Amino acid sequence: MRTPEIVDGLQISNWSRSVLEEMHAGGVIAVNATCAVWETAAETLRAVAQWTELVNQNSDLIFLAESPTDIQRARTQNRIAIFLGFQNTSPFEDDYRLVETFHRLGVRIAQLTYNNQNLIGGGCFEPHDSGLTRYGRIIVSEMNRVGMLIDLSHVGEKTSLDAIEASTRPVAITHSNPLWFYDTPRNKSHKVVKALIDKGGVLGACLYPTVSGGSSVTLERFTGMIASLVDQYGPDHIAVGSDCTRGWDDDFVGWLRNGRWNPTLPEDAPQWPAWPHWFQSPTDFPQLAEGLANAGLDDATIEGVLAKNWERLFAEVMTV
Amino acid sequence: MRTPEIVDGLQISNWSRSVLEEMHAGGVIAVNATCAVWETAAETLRAVAQWTELVNQNSDLIFLAESPTDIQRARTQNRIAIFLGFQNTSPFEDDYRLVETFHRLGVRIAQLTYNNQNLIGGGCFEPHDSGLTRYGRIIVSEMNRVGMLIDLSHVGEKTSLDAIEASTRPVAITHSNPLWFYDTPRNKSHKVVKALIDKGGVLGACLYPTVSGGSSVTLERFTGMIASLVDQYGPDHIAVGSDCTRGWDDDFVGWLRNGRWNPTLPEDAPQWPAWPHWFQSPTDFPQLAEGLANAGLDDATIEGVLAKNWERLFAEVMTV
Repeated sequence: MRTPEIVDGLQISNWSRSVLEEMHAGGVIAVNATCAVWETAAETLRAVAQWTELVNQNSDLIFLAESPTDIQRARTQNRIAIFLGFQNTSPFEDDYRLVETFHRLGVRIAQLTYNNQNLIGGGCFEPHDSGLTRYGRIIVSEMNRVGMLIDLSHVGEKTSLDAIEASTRPVAITHSNPLWFYDTPRNKSHKVVKALIDKGGVLGACLYPTVSGGSSVTLERFTGMIASLVDQYGPDHIAVGSDCTRGWDDDFVGWLRNGRWNPTLPEDAPQWPAWPHWFQSPTDFPQLAEGLANAGLDDATIEGVLAKNWERLFAEVMTV
Repeated sequence: MRTPEIVDGLQISNWSRSVLEEMHAGGVIAVNATCAVWETAAETLRAVAQWTELVNQNSDLIFLAESPTDIQRARTQNRIAIFLGFQNTSPFEDDYRLVETFHRLGVRIAQLTYNNQNLIGGGCFEPHDSGLTRYGRIIVSEMNRVGMLIDLSHVGEKTSLDAIEASTRPVAITHSNPLWFYDTPRNKSHKVVKALIDKGGVLGACLYPTVSGGSSVTLERFTGMIASLVDQYGPDHIAVGSDCTRGWDDDFVGWLRNGRWNPTLPEDAPQWPAWPHWFQSPTDFPQLAEGLANAGLDDATIEGVLAKNWERLFAEVMTV
């Protein structure tokens, strides 16, 4: 089985040498690497500083991407291009100027909200979604200007539709599945996916158990979903965002769920969900590629889903 | 009188369109622009963000410099290259990784201490100077690695000598005068200046009244000092750092003096000192150039003092 080339729409691992080696072994050549979820501007500055250290200490394996052409560079150099990403706009706080400032630090992708309402818009778990706010429209416009990809994965339906309409560039859902595949507020309606794709965007199918149906989901069912999406929306707009969370202990899943806005109670201590046996880590990407072939996708479509659809979208959005 | 080309070793003005126009009218093609004095990392992130906005809104006059070759670019484009600088290492807090991180944001010069003892070393107004600390040695090494110029203007004597020795690259005193010219802890002994210059560094003669002798200092006395320094140390190591503070009200001089470490008492409210009549703002650089000619310096030496000595040092230190 040949190792496929992977551009991964999102990972939020606790990166270390061994986690980077897993990615490399699985064929990952570029990844949207989360460096903020609930963090403030100051905390995110430290998180970016930690990335510079990790990059310096593992420069044989990774480099900090600045341009979409860095994906081709990663391919040539047999390294991984790290596209820093936010899963929330909390690092921008109330200051639109921090979009350009974090862009200068290498941040190339930002999700507008993380589950909850924030200054920019409504999150996918809120009972009422404000839609894109006044400040949110400025942030979308500023992200368009500097070439930062807008991600709607954890964003509410109304804010998602508003952002797709407000953005002058295509946007992404880096790591979600369609609602028909698994019913959770984290997954997406046909209305949102169609609006996204009509605008040139890309949906990354997500392996995280709580959006893909738990550890019992079969490879056939997951790759069948991708094949259906390709049938429905065409081969150029479907990709993968694994949402891998390697190297963390259970405290981190509590942080993801509750941040500092909700107490994590001992009797309700969050735990990581179990992943399906056929995708335990990025080393299993070759099995996913084989599954896509067994689901009837041709080689060109598989290449698109696993790498080139993100590559094309990044080129379109990040080139200014 | 021809407008000379000026590379200014330091300004800490309250930049606005009109302050930028003054610089441009006076012939400034590059400046070390202070964006932090007592600020934390988070506050400095916002200050850098404010610079991105100022640059975007005045791109006909200024641009953010990233490389020493940007001085030549400024000359060609008739704009000003802004080299962001710190007058303190407070933005690095306790995290050596923030050197590279702020370098990515455009910061190219940092003074190790501002008057007081800090984590890195002793300031020039401290009764006892710790010398360069354990953490200070890491910071010097990191600044050397990324190509950030070390500034010793407000640094204590012992820490200055330690830093000159520890640095693998030449360092600067961007805005101070020799002690013999005016006796204040902010000015420099022959021992420090000689050690700096032996290592290839540059001293920027400073027009700020409290280090140059107040508003009554004559142009002849000031340019005579520069001529003496050129005689003593050669024409390649003396430059100018005006220390202009345009556009601020008196509250800011209280901030400079007291930060948040010392209360500014109403009965001792600091005020800006009066400047000499022949140098009220950067528009007066042509008068300074004429004064240097009258002091007997030849054209090549004047070009060196006003621009090319900084240009050469920046090229040597910031090229990595």
